[in-house]
This record gives sequence, structure tokens and C-alpha cells, in this order.
Amino acid sequence: MTFGLTPQLRLDKDKVEANCRRMARRARDLGVRLRPHMKTAKSIDVARLATAGQFGGITVSTLAEARYFADHGIRDITYAVGIVPGKVADVMAIDARIGVIGDSLAIVGEVDAAVGEVDAATRGHDRVLPFWIEIDCGAGRAGVEADGGELVSIAGAIDGATNLAFAGVLTHAGHSYHCTDIAAIRRVAEMERAKVVRAADRIRAAHIDCPQVSVGSTPTMVHAEHLTGVTEMRPGVYMFGDLDQVRLGTCANDDLALFVDATVIGHNRRAGYVLIDAGGLALSKDRGEVGEGYGRIMDHPDVIVADVNQEHGMLACAGGEPPPFDRLMVGSRVRVIPNHACMTAAAYAEYRLLDDEMTIWPRVNGW
Amino acid sequence: MTFGLTPQLRLDKDKVEANCRRMARRARDLGVRLRPHMKTAKSIDVARLATAGQFGGITVSTLAEARYFADHGIRDITYAVGIVPGKVADVMAIDARIGVIGDSLAIVGEVDAAVGEVDAATRGHDRVLPFWIEIDCGAGRAGVEADGGELVSIAGAIDGATNLAFAGVLTHAGHSYHCTDIAAIRRVAEMERAKVVRAADRIRAAHIDCPQVSVGSTPTMVHAEHLTGVTEMRPGVYMFGDLDQVRLGTCANDDLALFVDATVIGHNRRAGYVLIDAGGLALSKDRGEVGEGYGRIMDHPDVIVADVNQEHGMLACAGGEPPPFDRLMVGSRVRVIPNHACMTAAAYAEYRLLDDEMTIWPRVNGW
Repeated sequence: MTFGLTPQLRLDKDKVEANCRRMARRARDLGVRLRPHMKTAKSIDVARLATAGQFGGITVSTLAEARYFADHGIRDITYAVGIVPGKVADVMAIDARIGVIGDSLAIVGEVDAAVGEVDAATRGHDRVLPFWIEIDCGAGRAGVEADGGELVSIAGAIDGATNLAFAGVLTHAGHSYHCTDIAAIRRVAEMERAKVVRAADRIRAAHIDCPQVSVGSTPTMVHAEHLTGVTEMRPGVYMFGDLDQVRLGTCANDDLALFVDATVIGHNRRAGYVLIDAGGLALSKDRGEVGEGYGRIMDHPDVIVADVNQEHGMLACAGGEPPPFDRLMVGSRVRVIPNHACMTAAAYAEYRLLDDEMTIWPRVNGW
Repeated sequence: MTFGLTPQLRLDKDKVEANCRRMARRARDLGVRLRPHMKTAKSIDVARLATAGQFGGITVSTLAEARYFADHGIRDITYAVGIVPGKVADVMAIDARIGVIGDSLAIVGEVDAAVGEVDAATRGHDRVLPFWIEIDCGAGRAGVEADGGELVSIAGAIDGATNLAFAGVLTHAGHSYHCTDIAAIRRVAEMERAKVVRAADRIRAAHIDCPQVSVGSTPTMVHAEHLTGVTEMRPGVYMFGDLDQVRLGTCANDDLALFVDATVIGHNRRAGYVLIDAGGLALSKDRGEVGEGYGRIMDHPDVIVADVNQEHGMLACAGGEPPPFDRLMVGSRVRVIPNHACMTAAAYAEYRLLDDEMTIWPRVNGW
């Protein structure tokens, strides 16, 4: 790997630290513990900043992340994508307490049996797998309804399972990303809180212990008015921020910590484009919630990445006018602010720190 | 890495071989040499199939690819993204003949000087860098106009440069991807051919030797009626095919060689979704030229990946009806056909062969 070659992924460590401190204060003020979601950062160096002063648990989105963070000493991990029996052996092989999530009675029984089989085959002593019930708080992706008939049956099945430990109820307000103002995000945050607390109340009313009540999404955690009844939060992208997060009011432009450095490789005056060497692979094809291009150029606030091919980005003004060619000389560097940090960062094996290009923080991509 | 975990990238080696043989025949029939573009495959194992029986040169889209393929013995490589002086030292450090491309007089002079500096600093003997002129054949991304005033000046500057060798003219008909029928692709193919041949003719009329005339894009190479005056083609995605390529008539469904294997992780009957563990990272957020979802499910031709989050894919019928829940059981495997192979494959460090999951072909991602 040669230094100085673009595109490269840059991280402002000071901004990451400040963003982590801000969310830690927010969790304390709201009276919940912080279990940061590492799906954006996928880096132990960032995880150390995000868990500093916290209870030490994290959330992950892949088993590759779970293995990596366990190998780096993190002992309490929630794998927050629906578990299936076929993945249990891999979960059990990781040397950490890995909580899993599910939303159906059938899965509970099959996972319980799978844990028993793995345990019998590999260890010969009883271990239990922490199992969370996923609640649909209105996002409509996965999870049972807080008021649905299945909820208490699932909790009972987990509670009665040989190899599972009921960890609590968990939800994610993914629909907060589609809000167009903060009042709407507050309403989603209250729906997220109320639904998952309602689920916990119903389970407890059936005399089943429900230790944790977990919510998460950066927009709802920043804008929620209160989290009464909730015990933990799981936001993730707040560590870095991105254009979507600025629009959602969860951070200011000055809080942004993640960038793609690119080189101007050409001027196409006929088409009205400045060409850079960061295209669809380097930025992702995530158009963001606004759908306006593939990123913005720092220090040139009018200029966006209007279009991308695999290795080419086409810069133009947001209004469609030609970009300032004479201020974007061929061979010069530009810094791109991504629409969606999670998608953009995934193209890179590592971060290079903003204040020292020679310092590399590795990432764990893949599955 | 545990075997059997999804999502995983699968490659049908027999289909890749057949696709490579078909394009090799096509090049022979059209009377041009084949310099396959490795930007999709990024794999030496695939490059061996694509160059079998050919002259051995390849095309790449990143310097990471150039280094990797040179390390694996490929000696003639065109780096087909506009060069800037700041990348010359990295190009010169690679142990192969790396051709570079450019489209402006200023770049020619600066690259020439940069080559001289690197050569003086590191070797002390003269080396020349093959330099191609990029022609805009109508795609409107990069390149000089075939009839423009700059073309012959640039050729003269390369020809007169101390450290550069004029390799020829090169173009890419990226606009073929936007065509909606084969007749339109044929017209684009003829525009691609005619423009670059016109550029070569003008350069030769100025008594400058123009050794190569290079075109490329899978749609135009499959559908071109003739390539009179052209010397080489540089298609890439034909090795695998994808949904965009089926639509463009460059391959049949039965020729497709690249898939993402995923697991059904949930049923959301309220929302009318089957959930899989392949989302925006595993499939990419490329919606394809048709813009209909993020992939199709093999063996369930009505079912598409209607929406994605980072690690979740939501399956539904293309018409919006609910998917066949009882034929997509939780825990079962599905095979996703990607919209755009280049973007989807880039999320994976390796291929697993379709006929043998234990055989891994590595990929070279990043820059």
C-alpha cells in the first residue's frame, strides 16, 4: 500500500472523540446505558472511544464484527440482525457473551435446540445464549408487534428454553431516517420508546423477568424528549456523522469526522464536470435521503458529486451549473463528505487519521 | 472465516469459462485483440480464463489491481482511469508495462516530467511510459473530441516527450448502458468505433504513428456490426453478466456466473416482506439501469430484493404483491442475481466457487 494515493478514507479522531463524549452525556442525561453500534465504524480503535466510560457492551451487525471485537477483548456483544439456527455454531464459537435477536416462536425453539447441539458437541457443559425479542416500533422491517398475540408466547418460550436466557426487548426506529423535521423525529422517538416499553410491560405482567429494554438510532437518540422505561441505547453513526445526519439535525457540519480524499483527474468543460478518482465504489451508490448526488465537496459547499461511474466521480454545482474549474485544478486534492457514512466506509480496509496520514486504523469488513 | 455463512459471493467457473470463450471468439470474428478489463473480476484466477489464448494484456481500473496483476505475472496492463502526475511514482514502481491514459496537453507535460524524475531518482536509466489519448466517443465523461483542436497537439506532445511512448487512442462507450434496445446499442457501437478511428486517422495524417485503436464496453462489443480500423477491445463484465447485461441483450439468464447466496432470516407478513441477510452492503445500492430493486431471486423469478438496509434485504414480488412465504422458509438459502456485478462483487474479499464452496478465489479490492 502506497501512502498518498487516492481515494482514501480519512477519519478525524478528535471529532470522533467529541461525538462519542456527546452521546455518552446524552445517554447519562436520559438515564440509560450506551451500547454503541459498531456497524458504521467496524474498528476496535473507534470502539475504544465509543465505550470509554461506559459499561463496555457493544452492538454489531455481522458475525465478522462479533469475532473481531471479541478477539480484541470486548466481552458483551449484541448481534442485532435476526438469528437463524444455521448461524448458532458460529455464534457459540466466539469467545464472548453474544446476545442474539429473534421475532418468532419457531426460531426460538430451533435456536434453543441448535445451542444445545453445539454445546453438547463442543463443550459438554451447559451454556446459555442471551436472546432478545425484536419489537417492530413502526419501522416495518422486522420484529413482533408490542401489542400482538405472539409477544408473550415468545418471551415464555425463551424463558422456558434450556439453552437460552431472556435478555429483554429491543427495537430500532429505522423510520426516523425518513423524517423531514425534528418534530417528526421526536414523534418517532416517542413511538420507539413507548412500543418497546409496552412490550416489556406486557411480558412482566406475565411474570417473566425482562431485564433490558433497548432502543436505538442516532436520530431518535439525539432528539428523544425522554426515555422513561428504557434501559439502553444503541446508536452508531453519531460517531462519524454524514450528510444525512446533518439534515436530520443530529450533528453540525463542524462535527463531521469521516471523509473520502480524492484527486481531481480531469476537467470536462463541454459536459460541465470536474472529474475525480472517487466513484461509485469509493463513495457507494447511496444517494442519501435527499437523493442529491453522492456527496459534497468540503471547502466548496456548492459543489456535489453529481454522478458516479465505478471509479469516476463527476463534480458539478448542486444547481446544475458548472463547477469552479479554476479552483479545482487537475492533480489537486478534494475532500468528499459522504451521504451515508456506513455505506461509504465499507469500501475501505482502513482509516487514515486526518492529522497523521501514516496512522492507520483497520476496519473489519465482510461477513 | 467460517464456511457456510451468508451472505457469500458465488462464482460459476464453467459459466465464466464459457463467457470468456464467447468473447474471445467475438474478438477474433471482429478482427481485434482482446484486452479484458479486470475491474469487475479483480481476480487472477478469472484473468487466467479471460486471457487464455489471447495476447496476454489486460485493463485495470485501480493501481491496486495493477500491482496485484503484475505480482501475479501479467506484464502488459492498461490503467484506464485518467493519470495525474502524483500517481506516476506508483505506476513506475510496478514491475510491468503499465499504459496510462490522459486527455489534456498539460497532463502530458507534467506526467512526462514526473516519469523523468522518478526514473532519475530510482533507476538512473531511461524508461518510457506508454501513454494513450482518451477520446470522448459520446459518453461525455472524459476524453478529447475526435474532431477537436487539441487532439493532434496532444499526440504530438506525447510523441515528442522524453519519457512517454505514444500507445494509441482509447475510448469507452459508457453511454451504451443507457440504451433500451439493441438497435440503439449498435448505433452507439458505431459511434464509438467511428470516433476513435477518426481520431487515429487525424493523428496519422499528422505523420505520428498511432499503434493501437482501443474500444470497449460489453454492450458495444457484443452488438457491434463491425470494428473496422480498431485494433483491440476492452470489455469486462461479460465474464460474469448481471441483470443489467441480460436487459442489454449481452447474455442470457443461463449465462449468469455471479451470485450472492443469502439466508432467509425472517417473515414480515404485515409488511409483505421476506427478510434476507443480504442488504445494501452485500448487494450494493446500485439499482441497475431499470431501477427495480436491488437484485432478483434465482428459482423465484417473480421475487426481487425490493428494498435494502445495511444488512437486511426485503424480498417482495416485482409487482408489489407479497412474496411466497411458504416457499421461502426462514433458515433456507436463496441465491440473488445482482443488478450490477462490478458493484456487488466489490463488497467481498473472495469468490467461493459454485461447484465447490471450499475453493476460494481471492479478489483485490480497494486502491
